[in-house]
Amino acid sequence: MDIGILGTGDVGKQLGRAFIAAGHRVRLGSRTADHAGAAAWVAEVGAGGSQGTFTDAAAFGEVVLNCLPGQHALAGLRATGADALAGKVLVDVSNPLDFSQGFPPRLFTEDESLAEQIQAAFPDTRVVKALNTLAHDVMVAPGDLAQATDIPICGDDAEAKQVVQDLLRESFGWERFLDLGPISGARGTEAWLLLWTRLLGAVGTHRFNLRIVREDA
Amino acid sequence: MDIGILGTGDVGKQLGRAFIAAGHRVRLGSRTADHAGAAAWVAEVGAGGSQGTFTDAAAFGEVVLNCLPGQHALAGLRATGADALAGKVLVDVSNPLDFSQGFPPRLFTEDESLAEQIQAAFPDTRVVKALNTLAHDVMVAPGDLAQATDIPICGDDAEAKQVVQDLLRESFGWERFLDLGPISGARGTEAWLLLWTRLLGAVGTHRFNLRIVREDA
Repeated sequence: MDIGILGTGDVGKQLGRAFIAAGHRVRLGSRTADHAGAAAWVAEVGAGGSQGTFTDAAAFGEVVLNCLPGQHALAGLRATGADALAGKVLVDVSNPLDFSQGFPPRLFTEDESLAEQIQAAFPDTRVVKALNTLAHDVMVAPGDLAQATDIPICGDDAEAKQVVQDLLRESFGWERFLDLGPISGARGTEAWLLLWTRLLGAVGTHRFNLRIVREDA
Repeated sequence: MDIGILGTGDVGKQLGRAFIAAGHRVRLGSRTADHAGAAAWVAEVGAGGSQGTFTDAAAFGEVVLNCLPGQHALAGLRATGADALAGKVLVDVSNPLDFSQGFPPRLFTEDESLAEQIQAAFPDTRVVKALNTLAHDVMVAPGDLAQATDIPICGDDAEAKQVVQDLLRESFGWERFLDLGPISGARGTEAWLLLWTRLLGAVGTHRFNLRIVREDA
C-alpha cells in the first residue's frame, strides 16, 4: 500500500520505517519539499521511502497518517489542503498536549477532541483516531510486550476503520482493537494521555500498553 | 478496622458490605441520621454495620471513604465538617462526572481534579484517590477477573497511601498498585473515566479493569 505521513518527527519517521519494513511505500511530508530530516530518513530507509510537501504526501497515500504535534495538526492539515485529503483515510495519531506549563502536560482542548475538530474541518476526509494511545516504538512492535494489548480506535466511517485495522494487523501484528464508535470516542482516547503521562513514572518505562481484562479473558 | 463511608448509593453500600465481610466495622453516613436506605443496609449487613450522619461516619472511621456522586462531594464533605475529617485518611472514590448532556458524561472540572479541590478544601485531611477507576462490584472482587489488574492510587501523604493499599490488599485481594505520586495524579485517573465510559460498549460489560503490560510482565 502507498502511505503518506504528515510530520517528520520521531513518530512519523518510526511509523514510516516500520511500514516500509512491512512492504509498503511511504512518502514523508513536511512544510518544504526538501526538508533535511526527511532527506536523511529517505537515505536511511532506501527504495520504499520518498519525501515531499504535506500535499505531496497526502496525494501519494491511500492511507495518510497525521503524525504532527497536536498544536500544529490543524495548521499542517490546512497546509496539506482539503483537496489532497478528500476521500482519504486519515489516521489521526496526534494528541492535544500542552507542555507550556511543564510535564505532565494538560490538554489544550475543552470537551471536544482534536480528532473531532479535524473531522469537522475536513468533512470529505475519513478520519480515524488510532495509535495515539501509546509510544511510537510500541505502535510498530506490539509483540515486544509480554502479552497482547489493546488498541482503541474510533471514527465515523466504518469502512475506514476496517482499512486501518487491517493495515495495523498486517503490518505490525495488532490483533485486539477496541472500537469506541464514532470519532467523538477520541474524547476518551485523548484524555487517556493525562493518565498515560502519569503512568510513566509508576510503570518505569514508556514501553507499555493497556490490556483490558474481563471475567472471561 | 473501623471504616466510615460517606454516601448511601450503590458504591458506598457495596464497599461497606464487602468491608464487613472482610471483618471490619462500617458506619454508613448520610445527610440525616435515620436515612431509610442506610437503615435497610444496616438490617441487611447485621452486626458490623451502623448508620449515622456524615459527621458520625467520619468520626467513627479510622479510614473514611467519599462515595458521594462527584457533583455532591464537596458539599457533602462540608456538611461532614473539617473537624470530623481532620487527620483522617479520606479515600476519594468520587468522579467529576456531568451527565447533564447525556451519556457518555463530560467532566465538570477544568484542568484541576476533584480530588485536588477536596485536598485544598480540607488541608488537615489525608486525601488518597483510589478505587475511582472501576465499577463498584469489581472494586471489591478483583479476583473475579481473568487476570490480576492494576489500581492507580495517588495522594500527598505516603503513609496514608500505604494504609489504603494495605486495607485494599487485606480486604479484597488487590495486589497491583500504580502509585502516581501526589494528589494531582487524580487528573489522570479522573480523566480515565472519559475512556472508561466509552469502553463499556466495546468491552461489552462494566466488569473489566485495566492491566498495564510491559516487556517483562
